[in-house]
Amino acid sequence: MNGRAGVLGWLSSSEDEREAARSTIVRIVHQEADALVAAFYEVFLGDTQSAQFLSHNVVQDRLRHSLRKWLLALVEFDPLADIEAFERRQIEIGEVHARLNIPNNLVMEGTTLIKTKVADKIATAGNHSPSAFHAIILFNEVVDYAIRLMSTAYMSGANRRTKTEEAFRIFSLGQDINLERETQRAALMEWSHSVLLSMLGNESEPSHNSFAASPFGLWIRHRAAVLFQGSPLLDKIQHLIREVDTEILPNISSSQPASLVMFQRRIDEIKFLLNDLFKLAAGVENGRDPLTQTLNRRFLPTVLGREISLSKKAGTPLSVLMVDLDHFKTVNDRFGHPAGDAVLSQTAETILNNVRATDFVFRYGGEEFLIVLVETAESQAHALAERIRTELTKTPISVAETESIKVTASIGVAAYEGHPDYEYLINAADAALYAAKQNGRDCVVVAGDESGTSALSASGQR
Amino acid sequence: MNGRAGVLGWLSSSEDEREAARSTIVRIVHQEADALVAAFYEVFLGDTQSAQFLSHNVVQDRLRHSLRKWLLALVEFDPLADIEAFERRQIEIGEVHARLNIPNNLVMEGTTLIKTKVADKIATAGNHSPSAFHAIILFNEVVDYAIRLMSTAYMSGANRRTKTEEAFRIFSLGQDINLERETQRAALMEWSHSVLLSMLGNESEPSHNSFAASPFGLWIRHRAAVLFQGSPLLDKIQHLIREVDTEILPNISSSQPASLVMFQRRIDEIKFLLNDLFKLAAGVENGRDPLTQTLNRRFLPTVLGREISLSKKAGTPLSVLMVDLDHFKTVNDRFGHPAGDAVLSQTAETILNNVRATDFVFRYGGEEFLIVLVETAESQAHALAERIRTELTKTPISVAETESIKVTASIGVAAYEGHPDYEYLINAADAALYAAKQNGRDCVVVAGDESGTSALSASGQR
Repeated sequence: MNGRAGVLGWLSSSEDEREAARSTIVRIVHQEADALVAAFYEVFLGDTQSAQFLSHNVVQDRLRHSLRKWLLALVEFDPLADIEAFERRQIEIGEVHARLNIPNNLVMEGTTLIKTKVADKIATAGNHSPSAFHAIILFNEVVDYAIRLMSTAYMSGANRRTKTEEAFRIFSLGQDINLERETQRAALMEWSHSVLLSMLGNESEPSHNSFAASPFGLWIRHRAAVLFQGSPLLDKIQHLIREVDTEILPNISSSQPASLVMFQRRIDEIKFLLNDLFKLAAGVENGRDPLTQTLNRRFLPTVLGREISLSKKAGTPLSVLMVDLDHFKTVNDRFGHPAGDAVLSQTAETILNNVRATDFVFRYGGEEFLIVLVETAESQAHALAERIRTELTKTPISVAETESIKVTASIGVAAYEGHPDYEYLINAADAALYAAKQNGRDCVVVAGDESGTSALSASGQR
Repeated sequence: MNGRAGVLGWLSSSEDEREAARSTIVRIVHQEADALVAAFYEVFLGDTQSAQFLSHNVVQDRLRHSLRKWLLALVEFDPLADIEAFERRQIEIGEVHARLNIPNNLVMEGTTLIKTKVADKIATAGNHSPSAFHAIILFNEVVDYAIRLMSTAYMSGANRRTKTEEAFRIFSLGQDINLERETQRAALMEWSHSVLLSMLGNESEPSHNSFAASPFGLWIRHRAAVLFQGSPLLDKIQHLIREVDTEILPNISSSQPASLVMFQRRIDEIKFLLNDLFKLAAGVENGRDPLTQTLNRRFLPTVLGREISLSKKAGTPLSVLMVDLDHFKTVNDRFGHPAGDAVLSQTAETILNNVRATDFVFRYGGEEFLIVLVETAESQAHALAERIRTELTKTPISVAETESIKVTASIGVAAYEGHPDYEYLINAADAALYAAKQNGRDCVVVAGDESGTSALSASGQR
């Protein structure tokens, strides 16, 4: 019975013991059912989000009823008879909770409370007899087993939902973002135009149109909130909309020029924020660093986690290079930021030209790149690092009309050695890179060899 | 102390009781620590995935050490003193577990086992005294509290990861999918070409190049597995690659024409599967139904769940229309499927022309559309449904060179009434739609009015 080790007590106890324990549990839980249900819900009512959720009468009545039924069913638990039906039921509940967004930690908290109360009653009622102990242990195990199944189902449900939500957000962004920006700019202008028209006494325009209820207002609440999830700019826009609706529109009048100035200032501010919102989205969302066309660092855990588990499963090698440009600050200081940018994009190009299409190149830091080399052993990774280092020294980069410079890089190499945490691998490459820097730069160091590095053992010149 | 109701026993017991209980717990846990750690890990070793994870010695040593430390720290728990440090620690552990992909249900199972063993020992050692009961309850509460914090942190970590993974998958798909398809078709052909060349005795080509290690093989394992996550077609391709490497390549020879035929057959099959893989992705991934340009139904939970919670929070109305074409099967039967498709896309166009840009139109079933009307009260939704119904009857659709037909639709309307489960709202609209069908079709029924529907109360003609 895989996954059922937690119901050890049930499985190892004799039938007589189980029956004695069960009859105690049945009696206590039946007797205390109302109090237990009430205690469970107090946990939920203490939570703002859930209290709101529970405000619907139908929900409250149905949930109380369900919890009572669930509790009474728990005490009938028999691992040797109906365990599969029991398991299915808990999984079902976890799935419903995920769909309804009922916080699983509150469910866990509520059941701990139930366990404490039941244990307390069993101890008192059972006069602290050995069989009372047995009943407590068995009841705890069954509740824990149920919660475990429920939580696991809840997690998969929540994960599935997160996945769909993220896909929806990205698809929404994919629907021609420039078109969307212009459409919404037009919607904003159309509304403010209608306000001005109504001030000028045009009878066909109702006065004091609510900003929040305008197409732009609706878009901000129902679309932008999906597209630009969690952006603080959105809150600012929403705040300005409310301000216009509650403070400016009620007092706006063509006889009061100041009111018009205030109105226009808010609209300009919103236009400005809207522009920023779309600009930020364009930058973050394409997944690549615009300057170097290398992958965004936020995907590193995804890629490295996946490659490590592939490597583990298939027994194939995996290596990581950490590449850092030498004296990059000097380039920026002497030739300016455009020169620095040219150096970065040229370096990235050299790297990308030397790896395979199935390798992954990340912009890891300002002048640092991390390369994931799939199915590549340490010696091959070392050779590739050498090639990249040499190529870089051979490629002059023009930084001004008549001037070109050569840059060098220090490289740390680390091969995956079985540790499941990807950070372990990154740290190893990082330590090797540090040793390469210590060793005079423009050289390659392999993880594990750091202590022995010297001008001789490290490759390349200083 | 919000969220800490589960440590009720600790908070309500007196200091003397707590001290007595703690000294019992400290003694037992110190004494049993090795056995408890071993029992915990047995759960993990019984799980295939985790056993593999634990195979690394560093991990095993470090985890055993960490678990021991964690257990001993648990027994020092004092909710009135260092609760915040305690909480931070559990959250940290949950985050690490999420990063390392350690199944949380196994952690829960292992700790239940620990609780049972500790309770058992306390009962025996404490001679079943009342204070032994107290110690058991307190220990259980503390373990549950730790697990609750850990699980919550684990879940957010896992969710964050899922989100990034999904974003990465979609961005990868977004990198010009047609280009990717042709690049990989070329990679496949290049490899099979090299095999044929080496058979023809071209010395520059090494014989028996491994298919799995070719650029195409690498791409299938390291990129396609991200792009086409979980597609069974991928497994088929991987299987064919292995077959070629292990069964066909070792025996291929120009003197055995049959071997060449087998080789070519596998390559053709892979080309075919590759094509299907890209075709399927193009269909599923754009988020909209290609025929009607309405939203894919899989986003309905995301949209409706979000709109319901917005509506709940802001107190704004929300309505849903369920639109079903009448006698659609007859259209298909009499005029063929292209006519059916024309009817569907024309209907979708009529619907999209009548809703606002911020409403959501889904293809819900074959000839069924679901419309989410944001910030729309029942009466407005009813009026809109009427308008859509009327527009449809007024729009003839050409189904053949010289023939055009008129279609009608039945519509169910339901307004959100506070129930947090989006399925409740869908079911209400569905029931109203059913009533409209029963009522003779080409009419609108509002949820809640079904029982009173008749030729008179329902709008429109039969």
